[in-house]
Amino acid sequence: MSGTQDGAGLIGVDWGTSNLRVLRIGEGGTVLESRSDPRGAAGLAPSAFPSVLAEVADGWLDGASPILVCGMAGARGRWREVAYLPTPATLADLANALSSPLDRPDLRIVPGLKAVAGGRMIDVMRGEETQVMGLDLEPGSHRIVAPGTHSKWIAARPGQIVGYRTFMTGELFAAIRKGTILGAGMGEPGVDEGAFADGVDRALTDPALTSALFSVRVETLADRLRPDAAADYLSGLLIGAEIAAHRQDTHGTVTLVGADALNARYAAALEIAGFSDVRLADGAAAVANGLWRIHQASLR
Amino acid sequence: MSGTQDGAGLIGVDWGTSNLRVLRIGEGGTVLESRSDPRGAAGLAPSAFPSVLAEVADGWLDGASPILVCGMAGARGRWREVAYLPTPATLADLANALSSPLDRPDLRIVPGLKAVAGGRMIDVMRGEETQVMGLDLEPGSHRIVAPGTHSKWIAARPGQIVGYRTFMTGELFAAIRKGTILGAGMGEPGVDEGAFADGVDRALTDPALTSALFSVRVETLADRLRPDAAADYLSGLLIGAEIAAHRQDTHGTVTLVGADALNARYAAALEIAGFSDVRLADGAAAVANGLWRIHQASLR
Repeated sequence: MSGTQDGAGLIGVDWGTSNLRVLRIGEGGTVLESRSDPRGAAGLAPSAFPSVLAEVADGWLDGASPILVCGMAGARGRWREVAYLPTPATLADLANALSSPLDRPDLRIVPGLKAVAGGRMIDVMRGEETQVMGLDLEPGSHRIVAPGTHSKWIAARPGQIVGYRTFMTGELFAAIRKGTILGAGMGEPGVDEGAFADGVDRALTDPALTSALFSVRVETLADRLRPDAAADYLSGLLIGAEIAAHRQDTHGTVTLVGADALNARYAAALEIAGFSDVRLADGAAAVANGLWRIHQASLR
Repeated sequence: MSGTQDGAGLIGVDWGTSNLRVLRIGEGGTVLESRSDPRGAAGLAPSAFPSVLAEVADGWLDGASPILVCGMAGARGRWREVAYLPTPATLADLANALSSPLDRPDLRIVPGLKAVAGGRMIDVMRGEETQVMGLDLEPGSHRIVAPGTHSKWIAARPGQIVGYRTFMTGELFAAIRKGTILGAGMGEPGVDEGAFADGVDRALTDPALTSALFSVRVETLADRLRPDAAADYLSGLLIGAEIAAHRQDTHGTVTLVGADALNARYAAALEIAGFSDVRLADGAAAVANGLWRIHQASLR
C-alpha cells in the first residue's frame, strides 16, 4: 500500500464548509487512502489553508504528484476565489478553468458553478460539480440529488451539468434543532422510521412549512410523537419539503450521491413521494472519481 | 399616579417564553404602570416563578388586588400546567377555567387554547387568546394576526376564538440568523424596505421556502443585496411565506395585534400580497384589556 508502485497519481482535496478530506487517488479514480479533518473552509483565513493542508496531507505531498482541490477553498474570502462557471458546463469547461492560489502554482482549484436565468446568477455550488462528473451516467438526461447541508437537485447529462437548484435542508435542520424550542430534548435522527415517514407525509401535503414545523411541538405535546423520535420527524419535514418541490415528475430516475445514511433517508422519502426509480451512488467515491476525471481532462 | 384613588383593581402578568411583563391595570383595562423583565417562562423552574414575580412586582402585591396571569406560566413544566381549552372558546369559557398554582391560591392563570380537528389536538397557543379577548371587534367574523416568535392567524368573532394556526416565523428568523451561513455579517432588520419587499415577493411566488432561503446568499454573492439589508430580505421571505398560506382570501379584514414595528412590517407585506383591509392594534394594550375582561367575566 506504500511507495509509488500503487500508482498514486493525484492528491485530491475536498474542502467543504465544515470538513476537509484529503485523498490519495490512484489510476482510474480509485481512492488509495483518505484522511478527514474538521477544519472546514468556513472557519479558515486565506493564509491558514497551506499549513492545514500540509498538516493533514503530511507525507503525501512529494512535490511530484499533482494536487486538485474542489469545494469551498475556491469561495470568496477563502484560499483563492475562483470565479463560478455558468451552467450548462462540461467536464472540459471545468478542466479548462482550474485556477491556482498565487502562493501555490503546484496546486489547482476546481471552479464552482453558477446557475443563470435571464442573465442573472440565481444559484451557486462548489463541490457538487465534481461529484457529478465522477458519476457513471448512462446516455440521456438525469436528475441527481446531492443531499447535505445545502442539498442540490441537479439536471445532468454524461459529462455535463445542465442546471440545478439548492435547498438548505441540512443547515436548517441543524439550526432549528440548536436554536428553537423544537430542539429542546431532541436527539439524533435515525431512530424511528415511522416518525420520519410522518414528517415526509406532512410536508408533502402541507405547503406551509413554517406552520408544519410547529407540528413537531404539537405532536410531542399531544403524546403522538416521542421526544426521541422528534429528530426523525423534523428531518422528514425538511426532506419532504425539498421533495415536494420536485413532485411534478416522479417517473424519471433520481440518483442520490451522498453518504450512505443520508442516501437511505432520501431514498425512503422519495419512495413515499412516489418516485419510481431511485438509485444510490457513494458521494465520497464520486468526488474522488470526479477529481481524477477533471485532472485527466486538464492534461488533454 | 400612586395610591388607590387611580382605581388599580388588577395585577396583570403576561409571562411569555422569553420575556415577563407585569401590569397594574385600572378600571376598564387601562394600563397604569408596566414593568418588563427578561426572565421568560422558558428558562424558569416551577419553584422560581413566585420569587421572580415578587421581585418584578415589588410594591404592587398588596394582598388585596387580584392577580391574573396569561402566557407560558401555564405551560407544562412551568409554574402550573393549566390544560388547554378546545376552540371554539368564549370569554366565559376562559374565565370559568382559570386555575391557581397549588402554592398560590391568590393568583390565577388563564388557560391556553388547543385547536382540534377530527378529535386530535392540531395546534396550541398560550397568551394570544388573552390578546384577542382584549380587542374591540365589530360584530361578524374576523381574521386576527398576532405576529411574533410563534405567529398566530386566528379566526375570531367578538368574545370568541373560532380557530387558529401557528407559524414559527419569528423563531425561525432568529435561528437562521444565528445558526446558518445566511447570518454571517447580517445586521438587524428595519433598514431597507426594498429588500424586505423583495423577500416578500420571492416568498409569494416561490413555494419552495428552503430553496428561497438560499437566495439570501446568492443575492448577496451577486451584489444585488447589500449585507446590511440581508436581514430585511430574510424577514420578508419568512413573513411572505406565512402570508402565502392565507392568500386565497385577500378581501376580508386582517387585524394585526403586536408591537408597532412588527405590525408595520406585516402591514407592508400584506399590502404587497394584495390584502385590501389591514388594521393595526397595539399588542400590549390588548393583553391588558384582555386580562381585565377575563377577570371581570370571572366575577359574574
